This record gives sequence, C-alpha cells and structure tokens, in this order.
Amino acid sequence: MHQEYFEIDEWKIIERDFNPQHRLVSESIFSLGNEHMGLRGFFEEDYSGKSMLGTYLAGVYYPDPTKVGWWKNGYPEFFAKVINATNWAGIRIFLDDEAVDPATGSVSDFLVELDMKTGLLRREYSWCSPQGRRAKLRFERFLSMNQVELAVVRCDVQVLEGVEQVILEPYLDGGIVNQDSNYGDSFWQPLASGEKDGLIFLTNQTKKTQYRTTASFGLELRLDEVLVSPQSELKIEESFASRCLRYPVAAGQVLSLHKYVAVTTSRDHIPEAVESESLALCAEAVAAGCASLFEAHSRVWDEKWRESDVSIEGDPKAQQGIRYNIFQLQQTYAGRDSRLNIGPKGFTGEKYGGCTYWDTEAFCFPFYLYTNKDVALNLLMYRYQHLEAAKNNAKLLGLDGALYPMVTIDGRECHNEWEITFEEIHRNGAIAYAIYHYATYTGDYSYIDSYGIEVLCEIAKFWQSRSSFSQPKQAYVILGVTGPNEYENNVNNNWYTNMLARWCLQYAGQQIKRLSTENPELAKRWRDKLGLTDAVLERWQDVAERMYAPRDESLRIYLQQEGYLDKEQRLVSDLAEGDYPLHKNWSWDRILRSCYIKQADVLQGLYFFPHLVDQDEMRRSFDFYEPRTVHESSLSPSVYSIIASYCGYQDKAYELYLRTARLDLDNYNHDTDDGCHVTSMVGSWLAIVQGFAGLRFEGQQLSFNPYVPSQWQSYQFNFNYQNRAMTVRVDQRYFTLTLHQGEDLTVQVGKQGYRVSQTQALKLEL
Amino acid sequence: MHQEYFEIDEWKIIERDFNPQHRLVSESIFSLGNEHMGLRGFFEEDYSGKSMLGTYLAGVYYPDPTKVGWWKNGYPEFFAKVINATNWAGIRIFLDDEAVDPATGSVSDFLVELDMKTGLLRREYSWCSPQGRRAKLRFERFLSMNQVELAVVRCDVQVLEGVEQVILEPYLDGGIVNQDSNYGDSFWQPLASGEKDGLIFLTNQTKKTQYRTTASFGLELRLDEVLVSPQSELKIEESFASRCLRYPVAAGQVLSLHKYVAVTTSRDHIPEAVESESLALCAEAVAAGCASLFEAHSRVWDEKWRESDVSIEGDPKAQQGIRYNIFQLQQTYAGRDSRLNIGPKGFTGEKYGGCTYWDTEAFCFPFYLYTNKDVALNLLMYRYQHLEAAKNNAKLLGLDGALYPMVTIDGRECHNEWEITFEEIHRNGAIAYAIYHYATYTGDYSYIDSYGIEVLCEIAKFWQSRSSFSQPKQAYVILGVTGPNEYENNVNNNWYTNMLARWCLQYAGQQIKRLSTENPELAKRWRDKLGLTDAVLERWQDVAERMYAPRDESLRIYLQQEGYLDKEQRLVSDLAEGDYPLHKNWSWDRILRSCYIKQADVLQGLYFFPHLVDQDEMRRSFDFYEPRTVHESSLSPSVYSIIASYCGYQDKAYELYLRTARLDLDNYNHDTDDGCHVTSMVGSWLAIVQGFAGLRFEGQQLSFNPYVPSQWQSYQFNFNYQNRAMTVRVDQRYFTLTLHQGEDLTVQVGKQGYRVSQTQALKLEL
Repeated sequence: MHQEYFEIDEWKIIERDFNPQHRLVSESIFSLGNEHMGLRGFFEEDYSGKSMLGTYLAGVYYPDPTKVGWWKNGYPEFFAKVINATNWAGIRIFLDDEAVDPATGSVSDFLVELDMKTGLLRREYSWCSPQGRRAKLRFERFLSMNQVELAVVRCDVQVLEGVEQVILEPYLDGGIVNQDSNYGDSFWQPLASGEKDGLIFLTNQTKKTQYRTTASFGLELRLDEVLVSPQSELKIEESFASRCLRYPVAAGQVLSLHKYVAVTTSRDHIPEAVESESLALCAEAVAAGCASLFEAHSRVWDEKWRESDVSIEGDPKAQQGIRYNIFQLQQTYAGRDSRLNIGPKGFTGEKYGGCTYWDTEAFCFPFYLYTNKDVALNLLMYRYQHLEAAKNNAKLLGLDGALYPMVTIDGRECHNEWEITFEEIHRNGAIAYAIYHYATYTGDYSYIDSYGIEVLCEIAKFWQSRSSFSQPKQAYVILGVTGPNEYENNVNNNWYTNMLARWCLQYAGQQIKRLSTENPELAKRWRDKLGLTDAVLERWQDVAERMYAPRDESLRIYLQQEGYLDKEQRLVSDLAEGDYPLHKNWSWDRILRSCYIKQADVLQGLYFFPHLVDQDEMRRSFDFYEPRTVHESSLSPSVYSIIASYCGYQDKAYELYLRTARLDLDNYNHDTDDGCHVTSMVGSWLAIVQGFAGLRFEGQQLSFNPYVPSQWQSYQFNFNYQNRAMTVRVDQRYFTLTLHQGEDLTVQVGKQGYRVSQTQALKLEL
Repeated sequence: MHQEYFEIDEWKIIERDFNPQHRLVSESIFSLGNEHMGLRGFFEEDYSGKSMLGTYLAGVYYPDPTKVGWWKNGYPEFFAKVINATNWAGIRIFLDDEAVDPATGSVSDFLVELDMKTGLLRREYSWCSPQGRRAKLRFERFLSMNQVELAVVRCDVQVLEGVEQVILEPYLDGGIVNQDSNYGDSFWQPLASGEKDGLIFLTNQTKKTQYRTTASFGLELRLDEVLVSPQSELKIEESFASRCLRYPVAAGQVLSLHKYVAVTTSRDHIPEAVESESLALCAEAVAAGCASLFEAHSRVWDEKWRESDVSIEGDPKAQQGIRYNIFQLQQTYAGRDSRLNIGPKGFTGEKYGGCTYWDTEAFCFPFYLYTNKDVALNLLMYRYQHLEAAKNNAKLLGLDGALYPMVTIDGRECHNEWEITFEEIHRNGAIAYAIYHYATYTGDYSYIDSYGIEVLCEIAKFWQSRSSFSQPKQAYVILGVTGPNEYENNVNNNWYTNMLARWCLQYAGQQIKRLSTENPELAKRWRDKLGLTDAVLERWQDVAERMYAPRDESLRIYLQQEGYLDKEQRLVSDLAEGDYPLHKNWSWDRILRSCYIKQADVLQGLYFFPHLVDQDEMRRSFDFYEPRTVHESSLSPSVYSIIASYCGYQDKAYELYLRTARLDLDNYNHDTDDGCHVTSMVGSWLAIVQGFAGLRFEGQQLSFNPYVPSQWQSYQFNFNYQNRAMTVRVDQRYFTLTLHQGEDLTVQVGKQGYRVSQTQALKLEL
C-alpha cells in the first residue's frame, strides 16, 4: 500500500481509485461523527467485498464479559464496549433485478471526497453490472452537528444504459454484531420495528445495560429533481425494516433519494419516549428539507474552524494532515454531553471499545482547553461524575482516596492486565493536572471550588496511601508501577509517577490553602467532608517533600526508574531492520529487559513540569532518552517533538512532528483498517502550538517561543484565551499575534513582554 | 467440612460416611494410578450426585488452544493437557428395572477402604431402592503395577430383598469431556467399537495429536462363587460399548462380576496394533484370573514399600499421612517410561493438565533418587529428550542455550503468563541441580558424560546470555525475573536465581574440566559439538565470579531481591484473619507491593546451597524470612521445615512439617476436590528425611543430623545409597542406621564419622 494514497488537498480528503484492498482503511478515514453518533465510511449500497460495518452511538455500551488467561484477584468482570448499533445508512439499489454491488460488475470514475470544511462525505462512480446494465451513482451523507440525532443520506442513480426500473431499498438493520465480542454474545434485543405515518423505525435495546434506541427514517424521492411517488413495499422483520421504492427511469434520468434519519436513545430520553422522539424528529427533518438541515449543520463547522483551524503555507500535505486531525477530534467530542468522553478511535472502529483512557487528559485536553474552554470543562465534569467509582476502585486495591481507571465508560475499571490495570497509576495524576491546567489557563477557579477540590483531594489521598517510606532510602517510594513507557512493568520509583504524585499532593494542599483564604467557610465545608485534618495535610506535605526522585549524578539527569542504568545501554540505532516493531518481533521479556522506551516517560514529566530542570538538563535528558525511544505508541513522537522545540532542536522537532502528522492518512502503522488513532491526532496540534509556537502558560502570562520549520513558509492557528479569540501566525520572518475579540493583554515572546490589543496586533521580527 | 474426615489407620484410608458433599474430595483421595494410567475414585455404578469423572492415560494429551486476555509476543499457542480418556471402570447395575444410584434411595453401612499396602480400593454399602428393593453392593478395583495396561474391577451384588433379577452392564464410555477445556473443543474422535471373541472394545483417537487408544474388557460372572452364563445383550454405539448381563438372584445370593480391562495406546504400540494388543492382553488377563493378577501386582507394591516406606511410632495420623503421600508418588511415577513425568495432580484431577513443572526436579527428585535411582535417572532422561525444544524456547526469547519450559508435556512451553513463562527462569537451574544431585549421590557420572553434559552446558549458555553487565554495579546482573516467590514479579537480581545461575555456570565448567581429565577425547568431542572454546568457558567463569548477590550488611543476610528492604516491612503476625489467603483477598498489586512471601525463595537457595552461609546466618535468614512468609504454596512449608531443622528449631520444624503432612487427607486448603497435591506430598518425606534425620550428601560422605520430634516416639525410613539398601531409625534415645545390603561405608552423624556394615548396625545415643 503506497503511503500517499489520498489526493492532497487543503480542505478535502479525496480517493480516486476503487481499491478493494484499501477499503477498510478508507472506511476508517471517511468516518463521520457528531459526538452523539458516528459511522465508518462504509458503502450505503450492497458491497460483498471486505468491509467493516460500524455504526456507533456514543455511550451506548455493553459489558462484555472479561477474557483472561489467568485470573488475578481484582480484575474487573467486564469490558464495557461501545457497540455496533443499528445500521441506518444502508440503501440497497437494484437496476431492474440486479443489485448494485461494486465488488461485482465493473466500477469506473470512482471518487470519494470528504469535505472537512462542512463535514460532508460525497461518493460517486459509474457501474456496469455483470449483465451490462450501466448507471452512475452518487451518494452524500452528513451527521448533523447542530441536531446531533439527525443524519441525512442522499443517493442519486443516473441511468446510463439497459435499465428500465430502478429500485431503492433504504433500510434499518438491527442484526449487527461486534467483531471484538469476547464470547460471541449477541448484544442487542429487538423490541419493535414498523412504519408510522410514513416513517420506518426500528427499536432495540442493549442486553444487560438496557439502553433503548430507535432509528427511524423518512424519504423523499425525486426524478430529475421533481418529487415523485413511487410504488412502494414495506418489509418489516424482527431486526430489520425497509421500504422498497420502484420507479421507471429512462437513460439520462436521475432518480434521487433523500433518507432523513433520526437516532434517539434512552440516554437522552425516557425509555418510553425514545421511539416517539425519533419519529417526531424525523418528521421535522423531512419537513425542513436537506438544504436547510445542511446549512445549520455547516454553520457549526464554520464555528469549529473559527475556533481551532491551523493553516500551513508551503506544505499542502501538512495542511491536509493537521486539518484532518482537527476534523476528527471535533467529530469525536464536542463537549455537549459531559457523560461522554473521547474514545481513542472515535467513531472509526471497534478497537479500544470507545472507552476513555488517560489520552483524554494527557493529550487531548489542551486542544479543547485552548480552542473552547467549555468543551474542556465538560471533560473535567466527566471525571467528577466518576469520582465515587474511582474511590471504589482504590478501595478494591486496598488504598485510600480515588484511583481513576485505566479504561472506562461508566467509571468502573474495564482493563485487565495487572501491570497496567493495577500499576499504571500515573493516569491519576494526569486527571489532576488537567484540573490545574484548566484553572490556571482560564483563570476560573469555580470548577475547583465546586467540584475539582474533591477530585484533587481524593487523588492526593490515593498517592499518600500508595507511597511508602523506605528505611534504606529514608524517603517515600512508590513501588510496583508501570510508567507511561509500558515497555517496563512493575518497576520501582518511576520518576514520572513519583513527580506527578508529589505534585498532586502539593497542588491539592495548595488549593485547600487558597480556598481557606478566599472562602474560609467553603474551605471548612470541604475539609470536614473530606476529613482533611491538619495532620492529613501535613502528611501530604511530608510525603511530597521526601518523595524519592531517581537520578544519576554522573549523567546529571533524572532516571526513568530506579535501576534503569543497570540495563545494557543500547540505542535505537543499534537495532536491526528485523527488530521493528519490537512488540511484534521480540518476546515480551526481551522488551522488558531492554533499555528501549516505548513512549515519552521522563520526557512526559518534563513536558508537564519543564521548570524541574534547566535548559541544559532538558537537552541532556532529550539527548539521553530520545535515542533509546522506539516510539511504538502513536502518543510518543509529539511529546518528544515539543521537548525538541524546547531544546531548540528544530530539525529534530520537525522530524518527530512528521511521525504523527499524517499517521492515519498515510496509514503509517499499517493499522488504520481497525480505525483511526483519534486521540493521537491531537499530538500534531500540540507539536505546532506548544512546540513550534512555544505557547506556554506558566504563572500568570501567556508566553511564546516561536519558530517556523524551515520546510514551511508559515503556519497560523486560532485559539482562545480568557474570553479572547486570537490568532498566531509565524512565518520565516515574523511572529504575529492578533487579538480578534476580548481585552488587551500582555504576552511574553522569548524573554520579553509585549502588549496586544484588538487595534494593535503584535508583529515581531524573528 | 471437618478436618479429620477419614478414619485413622496406619495402612489404610477409610471413609465410613456416605457424604455427597464430600464426594469430590473423596474421589480425589481414592484415585488409583500406575504411571501408565489412572482414575479418580468415582463410583462404578450410576451416580447422579456431584462427581468428576476422570480417567487418564499418561502422556496422551491434546493441545488445547491457549486462552489469553491480552496476547504478549512469545506466548505459546496451546496448553498441552493430559485429557479425560475412555471411562473403562463403569458398571451400571439394575435391581430388576431399578438402576442402582446411591444418590437416590437410601444408603447404609457405607465403607470405602483404600489399602495402600497393596493398592486395592474396596467399597461397599447397602442400598434400598426408591421402590424398596434391597441389596448389598461391594466393589474392588486395582490398576496392575506390573502389567500397567491392565486393571480389574470387581462388583458383587448380594440381594437382600425384593429383587428377582440383577442386571449388570459393564461399559466403556468414550463420550468424555474435560471440564477445563478452554473453548469447549471435543478432544476425541471415535474410531471403532464392538465385540471380538467375547471381548468388548472401544477405540478412539485424540484430535490433532492423534494418539490412538483402545480400552477393552472381558468378563466373568459368578453366582455364589460359581461361574455362570447369563443372558446377555450387546450395546455398541459410536462412543460407547457395553454388555448387559441378566441373572435371576435369590435373596442372600451374591452375583459377582469381574471386569478385566486392558487399555493400550499408540504411545506404546504402532497405531494399527493398538486394538489387537488390547484385546490380546485382555484375553490373557481373563485367562490368568484375578487372584494371580493381584498377586503379581501386590508384589510390586511390596518392593516399593521396601524401598521407600517411612514408619512413625506414636502418631498414627502422621503415619497415615506420610504413607498416603508415598503411595500417591509411587502411583504417579515409577520411572518405567522416560517420556513421562510427574503431573502436579498425578491422576487425581484435571488441574495443571498433567504437565511437568519444576516441582519434579526441585521437590520430587530426591525422593526417587534416594529410594530407587533408576527412577530418578528416567526423570533426567526426560529432560534430555526435551533439550532441542528447550533450545528453541531460549531462541524464541532471543537467548542462547536452553531454557526449559515452566509447563510442558512435549518440551514445548505451554504456560502463558509473561511474568512466569518468560521470567520464572530459575526452573532451569533446578534441572541442572538434579543432574548434579544424581551424579554425586550415586557416584555415577555416566549420565553426565553421555547426556547430562549437554544439558548442563546449554543451561550455562542460557545463563550467560541472560546475564548482563551493570556499569553502576560493576557486576553481572539478571534483570526482570520472577523467583520461586511468585508474589514478586519482574524483579531484578533475585538472589536465588542469581546464585543458581552462578552455580550452573561453575558446575558446567567443572564438568567439562573433569571430563577433560578423565576422558580427553570425549571432552573434546563435546566441546567441539557444543562450541565450548576456552573463551566461552572463561566467560562463564567471569560471569559466575562477578555475579551480583543482593545483601544487606546491617541485617547480615542475603536479600530476596534488590530493593526488598524498600518495602514496608510487616510480618505475617500483622495480618488480620480476613487477609488470608492473600491471593484471594488482596488485589494482585497489593500482594506484589507487600513484603509477604508466598513460598521459600532465599530459603530455597539455602536449601540447595547451605554452605553459602554459616549456621548463624542460616538462623538469621530463617528468622527474617519465615515471619514474612504466608506459605500460600503447598511447596513452601516443607522447605522451611528442613531449614528449621538445620537451624535446630525443632518445634518450628515440626509445626511446618504438619502443614503439608496431611494436606489432602485433611483437605487443608479446601481444594482437594480438584485433585490431590501430588508433587507437594513429597515435601513431608523431605522434611523427615532431610530435616528431622538431617540426611545430607555433601562432598563424598553421607551425613545425618538426626532428632525426633517430641510428639513422636520414633520414625524409621528405608532408602538406597550407592547399591546399598539401608534403614534409618530415630527414636527419643537412639539413632540407628542399618545396612541390609551392599558394602560397608562410613557415614557422618553430627560432626563425627562412623563405620556401618551389614553385620554391624550403627546405633548412637542422641
């Protein structure tokens, strides 16, 4: 598979070949979503080639029984999976009695075009049937970004030759399964299907979790743009509902079908109303018509791009890459519903079960925070709602406070590998860090005061109980952890984890102190509720102060973990071709014994806490760890890229940036068929904004340390900051900061402060 | 379930209650075996109560596809399991039209009696049917110890009341399944069933591995001891074959059936002959008759007891316990077939799949070595035959030499938990240690010279490649291992593992050196074949000499692993009742983080290499580690007991001895329903022989350091030593060593040497 499969375009993803071998990847790439629901870019019509049908409803999950080789005490009993839901996109098409199926007959002039500006997926091709009937087919679909329960699918059939009658059979198929079911369970129970007032509907319910969903559709049929009333037959089965429309079509004529779809769930409506709400919405959609629905939808996209667009001059590939990444992030999570979060594959595949990982806080959070803080706030609320479950999780491990799960949908842990589930506890710190980041960036402490303080303090309690005092070291240690570098398991004193724990303990204490000054009464209420006696706070302080930090004094760097230097020190450059990727070619113990690093670990710590080292040590750390890092996580290169920018290693920063910028578009890891790496897409945004532009927020001032990679003419990005809408532009000569909206402010560029106002953009020569 | 369920008897295990709740445990306890085959003590007649039918053929296995939660590179694709084979013991019994089923009607005068002296299982009870028919039933069975393919089942039905006709239907049932099948696979394919010359047979074959087996039986029916010819019907189905015998029986009369069974497999015969061999053997057995078969069988048991009996005066419970343990060991493995080994549950259950573990070398080996060295030699040959597979196993992990698997039947690794499979590599050392033990104890180096040297050197190569040089420590380290204490995973420099590795490297080098002196030509051939240049041997020496040994200089003991003292130091006495057993009550990470020890680790090393420490340090080590040990492995207390004996802690030694002495008889761990802990049974033998009597062999002399626990009057055991048959007796006053056969020798008792001859037993006052 060649690496530049899709045509380069600044706003579009274009596929021009009908390539059955590439279908699964293309299906992933052309996935659409609107936070409420989504689907892979599979064909509307029949397709007997390789395809992975995937239609998802955010938050509608099934607790799939856990699969283990050897049970360890504490493993969860299920893995919650967002599951394949009713396929509402399908439209069977017949030319007379021949079903259109691009895997049969012959296909020409094939084109798929995803317009990222408006979130519209178009497709067309000419098809010659095995028996010689010819037609031109065109499809369009979008998932409304403003009425998220709505979608529209359009299908045009232009008859070219040998066809008397075209039959269109739009359908709802509830007989769907997950490829990743652990024990082949069927996840859905059919409830009802039928027709009401001209609308077709199908209602089903997940087993165990009992989420009820209804998909319904209404239709419009036109011949050469004129509404027509076709012959029609209804087909209603237990898990299937369709309407068959037959119409005679002469050569050259175009038969057009609009399928207006409404999908509702009992997450948003009382179970008894799910069906009627779907039908009502569907009826409204038919009445409103496609053009007006699309206009309202694309206005939302305009706003999203206004908030978050990044434009790059001089490198159309990079431009396409970053826009695609932002497009997928915006499709996956829009912050309307704080019960939802960001699945690592968004709506593009089954893998990772649509669950929440630390990716959200550690990687995605700044993107939403800097482009629309309300979206970021919803991400914080999500974790707040899971606090009780996180406390229970800690309790199950015999610990105090709260331990947020590695993988979750409803707050309960789903993951079952002891070295991750029980030991990769640094995830807890990232959640606290996001709270800190939100408060300092927005200047708004109301979330902390009302909710966050409880999360912070329960996390602090966890760290205190998870630390123990080492007599030999006369320091607090955290034993038996897995750091972000999952190529080490069950290590002692992972520096990143220890530093994050120390910071959490300190920050929670500081927030209690701040609150005690600002609002003593509230502070007292929280302290009483959370049992935060002076002794507890002192204990936190003591653990934080005496937390062990593994370090090598001859290298003058922090060590990834205790004993890291006992390993045979080899570099990535010592590896042979056949060693890559290690996780496929080396046995697990060999990986563990080696010094090779999967993803940023000490450097992840330096990304969060750059002030812990000076510029020289930042460089020493990068120089030591980067040559040992195999970047076998899609989350890795972007963090290294940012640190390389911090170090002034501009070429290296750009080289690392490239490794995630078009990860899925170029199918870099040969696994996009499973779905896209949505949570890693944010990495390229981080590398530009926090790396190249050096946007940082420490203390009270926004600061920049900008440069432009020599391969680009310029880049420009929009962001928000404390009720201000701003744009940064960096080209080979100038750094320009424009304030579109909001009050004047002072920013720091390099080491100097500058004033910016709406009337006076800041333009500095680099 | 009360702890003293079985009646105490020095030679018998007696169950007097018909207790359906206890059936699974009783079935385990009353298992019979003869190395070739075995079965649980399930009922011959129908039994609709809880039962686990288990009939096993040693070495006849199925590669059950591996079950994993998360696949790690290097995991094996199957778990080889000795599987449930044709049930040949079954006899359906009808009183007129009522099937005898002790779960229905009423049972009285129930008695099961296992005679360990002769390996005969007897059972009897009176049964009143639901309709009021009454009969007395008696059963006997044995598996021939001299013709291991033969078994005899006898069933007597004495009519008491209300019965006109007794129907006996002896059968073969090939429709058997394993409870522990990972994916519900059916393991057997039926081949043939039928009747030939009056014998019934059933032939089937394992899927994938294609082991063919035939079970056949011939019958004798007697009324009041007189042979009779009954009415008879044949029933032949695909996986079932029986003969139904009907005979009128008057009240008081006894109808007796002998079922002579022969079970052959393609492990011992060419596939085409499996059936005919079974039939021929069966015909011979019928001709020979039960009495003569039993006599030949029990002669073998006489010999086994002559070799290995332990008798204890003053404690019948202890007497019964140790005899039961020896009985099960002798049933499980007799060393006739070097392709077989000792499954941890023998023939008593499915758990552990009848596979080979390090238990064999680390625990069972001395028992066989000291009682019948030829049996021990076969255990060595078993591993020699797996050498190529072990080399391949090392190669899969990217290492040199040979790594013997954690769990195996055919040499390939079956286990799939990375922390065990890939990391619990100390098992490799135990295999080398057994070779050393054999050669020094027997004085016979011919196994080493012809075979063992290759095993030793490949193991040494493994250790050399698995060690790496630590710059900070300026020593060789072994990183990422799991020691015998599996409550620590992926630790660095486990002392036991490092010491064993060091010893293996040294011992392999020494044997090459010895051979170079004794037989330079052979030495050269081996060195050429194995690529043992001077540089290689020097490298081994260097790694051995500079191997890191974690130690605490203030405690003056060796540390279980690097950093062990960083853990919070708590004692078993600090645990609460609800904490036991940890593996059920604590999450896995809590166990790993704690200092609690599952089983002997440093002390396992001191058991193998007592000379590494002086008596004071032995005590300091025991005093430190024992209070931290939860003994949650049945292999643990016996090693601690031996070390306690070394330390002179006699009460502690006895207390620890008790924890394994009657583990299954008293269902101490509440899991005997699964099967008995056969490989841990040897622990009580070791605790007596190596602990209480202090039998040790270091250098060139047998030595003793005897005492008798104050709870006993005396104990006495038989053993062999370099073609000598000897008995040790220790009572409260005297240590007596008798030489029954073989040349005079000098032994050491305490610190002094003594001469012993056949004419002059050694009797020393204690």
